[in-house]
Amino acid sequence: MKVSQLGERGVIDLIWSIIREEGGAQRLKDMALPPSDDASAVRLEDGRHLILKTDMFNRRTDAPKGMRHHQMGMKAVTINISDLAAKGVRPFAFLFSLGLPRNYKQSNVRSLVAGINAAALEYGAPVLGGDVGEARDLIVAGFAVGFSSNLVKRSGASPGDIVAVTGPFGDTAAAHKILLKGMKAPQPLRKTLCRSVYEPRARLELGIALAESGLVTSSMDSSDGLAFTLNELARSSDVGFVIDSLPISKPARDFASLNELSPEDLALFGGEEYEIVVTVKKGAWERALGAARCVGGDLIRIGGVVSEKKVVLIKDSKETPIPSRGWEHLK
Amino acid sequence: MKVSQLGERGVIDLIWSIIREEGGAQRLKDMALPPSDDASAVRLEDGRHLILKTDMFNRRTDAPKGMRHHQMGMKAVTINISDLAAKGVRPFAFLFSLGLPRNYKQSNVRSLVAGINAAALEYGAPVLGGDVGEARDLIVAGFAVGFSSNLVKRSGASPGDIVAVTGPFGDTAAAHKILLKGMKAPQPLRKTLCRSVYEPRARLELGIALAESGLVTSSMDSSDGLAFTLNELARSSDVGFVIDSLPISKPARDFASLNELSPEDLALFGGEEYEIVVTVKKGAWERALGAARCVGGDLIRIGGVVSEKKVVLIKDSKETPIPSRGWEHLK
Repeated sequence: MKVSQLGERGVIDLIWSIIREEGGAQRLKDMALPPSDDASAVRLEDGRHLILKTDMFNRRTDAPKGMRHHQMGMKAVTINISDLAAKGVRPFAFLFSLGLPRNYKQSNVRSLVAGINAAALEYGAPVLGGDVGEARDLIVAGFAVGFSSNLVKRSGASPGDIVAVTGPFGDTAAAHKILLKGMKAPQPLRKTLCRSVYEPRARLELGIALAESGLVTSSMDSSDGLAFTLNELARSSDVGFVIDSLPISKPARDFASLNELSPEDLALFGGEEYEIVVTVKKGAWERALGAARCVGGDLIRIGGVVSEKKVVLIKDSKETPIPSRGWEHLK
Repeated sequence: MKVSQLGERGVIDLIWSIIREEGGAQRLKDMALPPSDDASAVRLEDGRHLILKTDMFNRRTDAPKGMRHHQMGMKAVTINISDLAAKGVRPFAFLFSLGLPRNYKQSNVRSLVAGINAAALEYGAPVLGGDVGEARDLIVAGFAVGFSSNLVKRSGASPGDIVAVTGPFGDTAAAHKILLKGMKAPQPLRKTLCRSVYEPRARLELGIALAESGLVTSSMDSSDGLAFTLNELARSSDVGFVIDSLPISKPARDFASLNELSPEDLALFGGEEYEIVVTVKKGAWERALGAARCVGGDLIRIGGVVSEKKVVLIKDSKETPIPSRGWEHLK
């Protein structure tokens, strides 16, 4: 069996099954977040948590056509910080291991590293160290570290909670159709859509504000796509989600209409969108919205949590299942 | 200019110059170890240090011919832990980002991950998380974290201190000549030599014991080769080293004699050897040796620290400079 048949998630399941079988699980009970969560966490003696995250950026699979090196550097940091943001954790430091092809130009390395440094400073996580080696692909394996007193897990949603997102979806799916399938869009729509994949940003201050508010019961980064994220969040909390209002961006709607595509599909099955999907305590909506707006962010109500284990979209008074399909490496 | 002209160390210098230029240095003053040291460290509020290390293993450049996947997994952990060992830091957790070629066999991934897990458990640093992506090379970017109250820097050696190593050198250089150049050695010499590159281990307990003893003034992991390490350690401490007794292993001597090679060159210019090079306080030799032996380790005296900034080998009563030449990626 090849890893391309297993896919990214199959390999991750394989890894954790080996670690459990081989006695690595002894210490897993100390973990404050399960292996399936957005990041890893350990409780410290002072009661806080140390949160650790690694995510690998590979130019060949993670840089859309036309992405500049500075943007690649920023994205390599963003993909790590977004997971900390979803856990409500302020990053403390960033490290990276850089794999470089032998014939890579110094000027491109310079732009890449300037991008890494710019993003690290923007997120308040200074670059503290790294390693450089040779690789056939340009690779940035990032590592982010943070401390937290308000960790928000993927599990924790209860029936009656509100399902919400930190922004509208669909732009990245539209951008991929432009860049990979050559679909058309007039300027400046094309520019707006492409910016979503060239310059993604993590919702860091918003994630931290929501965690500090104590009003959020579960949370997950949406980078694997909205449909997958909703399913995963519901599964982790052992509940169901009824989505009655899909958060589709205006540019994605315009692009769908121009190209006769389903705007719902663009919003559900995009991926590489770094919004946060959260559930908010029953009766706390106005306060949660206030907490989000306080840091210049937003919160969009898209549905509710139910006890029946289903993830469905209500459309024309009918329930349609939202399949757990999303972005996956190696597949 | 291509990165192959800069080499690994040139790229690292470039990275830090960019980070300094672009304002990343603002927070660098909080760093308890300079960027050039073996790992990164930040002082915590409770007075301890948080130590962070990332090192990337690439099968194509870091796995010698004939290395099994389990051994690759163990080496990917060892290269990270060795740097913590040199700083006297007990690791607390290990994470890794895995880059996999699409056609990689599941059974090889299984062996690799079992190796990672086995080494992580051996060093007491359980695997807490990771990421999986696609890459043309098999890549394991490791990330090790630890806390410390007894950090040993590369700087800190003073004239009069003793220069010592935790084991003899030369086996890996000999093994590379067997595996890459086809040089001959009878069994079991061949087996002994090859084991040094297939199954390297970090001197973790020894490094921690030496740091806790308080008798070590500076310390560095020797993975870039003994000659380079001696030069780097002397430079960091702004002193010189006079080496009067090169620590050449018996198997390396035998191999050198069989193949008419210089045993000194094998010991000095090998690389990928995970011993620790330390300087020991004047008058503390017996106690330092006791601390090493207490944990089943050893300490071999090889020379002394002098104020004149030179790194020389005494041979036949003559001083020969030890050039700062060593293992380097991308070159």
